[in-house]
Amino acid sequence: MIVGFDDQEGTSPMRITPLTELTGRSRILQEKLREQQVDAAILVQNSDLFYFTGSIQRGIYYLPAEGEPVYFVFRDQGRARMESGLCHVVPLDRLGGLPGEITRFGLPLPQRAGMEFDVLPVNEGQRFRKLMPASEFVDITPQVRIVRAVKSSYELEIMKDCALLADRVYEEAKNLLVVGKTDHEVMAELFSFALKEGHQGLIRMRRFNAEMFFGHIFSGVDGAVPAHLDAPLGGLGTTPAVGQGAGHKKIAAHEPIIVDFIVAYDGYLVDQTRTLAIGPLPDKLQQAYADMVAIQKLMFDLARPGVSWSELYRQCYLRACEMGYEKHFMGAGSSQVRFIGHGIGIEVDEYPFIAEGFDDQVLLPGMTFAFEPKAVFPGLGAVGVENTWRVDEEGIKRLTYSNENLWQLPLS
Amino acid sequence: MIVGFDDQEGTSPMRITPLTELTGRSRILQEKLREQQVDAAILVQNSDLFYFTGSIQRGIYYLPAEGEPVYFVFRDQGRARMESGLCHVVPLDRLGGLPGEITRFGLPLPQRAGMEFDVLPVNEGQRFRKLMPASEFVDITPQVRIVRAVKSSYELEIMKDCALLADRVYEEAKNLLVVGKTDHEVMAELFSFALKEGHQGLIRMRRFNAEMFFGHIFSGVDGAVPAHLDAPLGGLGTTPAVGQGAGHKKIAAHEPIIVDFIVAYDGYLVDQTRTLAIGPLPDKLQQAYADMVAIQKLMFDLARPGVSWSELYRQCYLRACEMGYEKHFMGAGSSQVRFIGHGIGIEVDEYPFIAEGFDDQVLLPGMTFAFEPKAVFPGLGAVGVENTWRVDEEGIKRLTYSNENLWQLPLS
Repeated sequence: MIVGFDDQEGTSPMRITPLTELTGRSRILQEKLREQQVDAAILVQNSDLFYFTGSIQRGIYYLPAEGEPVYFVFRDQGRARMESGLCHVVPLDRLGGLPGEITRFGLPLPQRAGMEFDVLPVNEGQRFRKLMPASEFVDITPQVRIVRAVKSSYELEIMKDCALLADRVYEEAKNLLVVGKTDHEVMAELFSFALKEGHQGLIRMRRFNAEMFFGHIFSGVDGAVPAHLDAPLGGLGTTPAVGQGAGHKKIAAHEPIIVDFIVAYDGYLVDQTRTLAIGPLPDKLQQAYADMVAIQKLMFDLARPGVSWSELYRQCYLRACEMGYEKHFMGAGSSQVRFIGHGIGIEVDEYPFIAEGFDDQVLLPGMTFAFEPKAVFPGLGAVGVENTWRVDEEGIKRLTYSNENLWQLPLS
Repeated sequence: MIVGFDDQEGTSPMRITPLTELTGRSRILQEKLREQQVDAAILVQNSDLFYFTGSIQRGIYYLPAEGEPVYFVFRDQGRARMESGLCHVVPLDRLGGLPGEITRFGLPLPQRAGMEFDVLPVNEGQRFRKLMPASEFVDITPQVRIVRAVKSSYELEIMKDCALLADRVYEEAKNLLVVGKTDHEVMAELFSFALKEGHQGLIRMRRFNAEMFFGHIFSGVDGAVPAHLDAPLGGLGTTPAVGQGAGHKKIAAHEPIIVDFIVAYDGYLVDQTRTLAIGPLPDKLQQAYADMVAIQKLMFDLARPGVSWSELYRQCYLRACEMGYEKHFMGAGSSQVRFIGHGIGIEVDEYPFIAEGFDDQVLLPGMTFAFEPKAVFPGLGAVGVENTWRVDEEGIKRLTYSNENLWQLPLS
C-alpha cells in the first residue's frame, strides 16, 4: 500500500508519484493543448502541481505542447527534487527569470500560453502577461480538469485506501454518537480519530471561495439549515464567520443524524454519507431514506461510459419528483441545489458534475464521482446516502462500501 | 463574551457583528475609494464579505464611494438577512441581474469599479467586465487590506478571547507530549481539544495557493525541514500531497518541540509559538531560544505608531545576525524567509508585514501582528517564540500571554 521510506527508524513512509504516472498525465494534456493550438501550459495551482509534478512547491509546471515538462521551483527546491519524479526540476529565484530559463532550456516562448483562469488571481495573471508580452494567454481550465477527471489505476488504488479509512471513520461514528453530545463535539472526536488513522487533514476545493472542513455532521433540524456552500446540506456552524458545518446542537433520540465525511489520504479524497439515528425515526424519514437509496440504485443502473452528465442528473431528478420530493430533494424550497453528484479526486469539486448544463459531456472510463441523493425537511432534518464511484468499461463500481442501512443505534 | 442567542434550549450562541462596526468599516473604505477616484467597491471574497457584511454568503458587497452599502446575495439569502446587520441585503438570482439591481437601487453604475485583484480569479474578473463593459476595473487590494489591518476595540476583544483559548491549547500541549508519540498524533489530539474548546476549525489565508491547517507541531529534526509555505518552519507532513506540517516522527527526549498553533474563534485568529522539551536541551539550543526572546524584546522596545514595517524588520534582523544567527534566523541556509512577522486578524497573512520592502508603510494604532523570531538548525531542529501583538497609541501590547519559558517537561 505504501511505497517510499521505511518506518523502522522513525522516518516517514511516503507515497511518491511514479514517473510513469507523471509522464502519462503530461502526454494526455499535451494532446489537449495541440487540439486547442496552445503552445504551452503554465500551471501554478497546488492541486494541479501535485497532479502533474508529484510535489507541491511554490513553482511553475511548464509543459510545451511537444517535448518534456519542466518544473521551475522557487521554494522549496530541494523538496521538489526529492518528491517529483520529473526529469527536469529547475530552481528559479524570481518570476522575472522564467522567460530566460525557458529559452535556456532550448524551448521557444509560447505564442499561445494556457493557464488555469478559474483559479489564477487577476494580479498573478497580469504578472505573467507582463513577463511575456508577446504571448497570448488563454484559459485551459476545461482541458486540465478533463485530464484530471480520468483516474489511472494508480490513483484508483489510493482512492480505495481512502474508502477503507472512510469505513473505519463511519464505524467509529457509531461509537461516538450519544444523546446530549453536540454535533460539534462529535465532529472534533471523529476528526481526531480520522487524523490518527491517516487522514491528511487538508481537503481541497477548486471553486473560488469554496471552503471545506472535512465534511459535516448534523443532527435533526440542523441538517436542514442551508448555507453559502453549494451543497444540499449546509449547517449552522458555530459562528457566522464560518457559516456552515456542525453547530452546538445537542443530539437527541428519534432524529436523523447525517455523517457526511470526506476522507483525504495521500492527496486523494472520497466522499461518503450515511444516516443514523438513536432509536427509531418517524416513518416519513425512514421512507425518505429508502427512497434516496432507490435513486442511487437508479443512477447505478443508468451510469456507464457515454451517458451524459446531465442525462444522469435529469433521470434521477425526475424520479425524485415522481416519488414526491420535488420540494425536498437536494435541499428544501429555495435552497435546493441543481446537482446530485460531483467528481472527486485531488479536489472535492472535480469533473464530472451530475447536474444540468452538461449535455455535451459524457462519463468516461476512469472517472470518479460522488453521488449524494438527499432529502431535506425543514424542522425535521435531512436523510440521504452518498458513495464515491468509479466508471469502468461497462458501468460503474463502488469505491466506498460501508453498510448502507439506515443505522439505528440503541436508545439505552 | 458572547452576544446573541441563549444556549438554554440547545440553540447556538453566536456573535453577530454589530451594525455600528459594519458602518464604521464601510465609511473608512469609502474614504480610501474617494482618494483613489474609485466610484464603487465590488467585493466578493469570503474574508472581505465577513468583515464588511458580517455574513459569509455567495454574494457581492457593493459599496458606492458615497452612500450606503448593499449586500447582493445569491445564497443563502435568509441567512444573510439574519446574520448581516446591514440595512440593505438584496436577493440576487444571477450575476447578470447585478447592473439592473444597482440601477434599481438608485445608484449609477460605477465608471471606476474596485475589486480584489489579489484573490479574484481571472475568469470571475472577466464575468464582471462583460457585465459592465462601460466600467473600468481597478485593483483596490491595498485599500481593503489597510482598512482591515486596523482593528476596532470590538475586534480586539474577540482576539483576546482567541488568546485565552491559545493559552488553554498550550497548557494541554504540555499534557500530550510524550516520548514515542508522533508529532502527527499530538497534533490530532491537540486540535480535537481546541475544537471542543471553541476553535472554529477553518483558518483563512489570503495569498494564492497558501494552505494552513491549524498550525504546526514539530519535534527535533523535523522542525528544520523547509516546505513550500512562506514560513520559517515548514515540516515534512505525512504526504507530498500536503507537503508541510506535522509528520510521523516520534518525539524523543532532549530535542526541541515547537508548538505553533493558530487559534481561530468567531472569525478571528491569533498565532502563538512556544518551544518545549522533554528533559534538558543542548546548551546551544537553550541559548538560541533565549536569543530569540531577546529579539522579541528588541521588537517590543522599537515598535510604536509611525515606525515603518521594514525598519522594524531590519533592526531585528541585524540583531539576529550580530548574535550569530545569520545562517539560522527564520530558516536555515537557502530556505530562510525574509520576514519576521505578519499581520493577523480574519486571515493569517494580513497587513502589516514585518519584512523588507515596506519602508513607506508604518505601524498604526489598532494594527495587530504576530512576531515570530525563530532559529533553525538542520539536523537538530528549531527553537523560537511567537506572540500576537496589538499597536496602541504609545507602543504595542501583548494579546497572547502564555508563559514564555523554554518549557522543560520531566524525562519519565
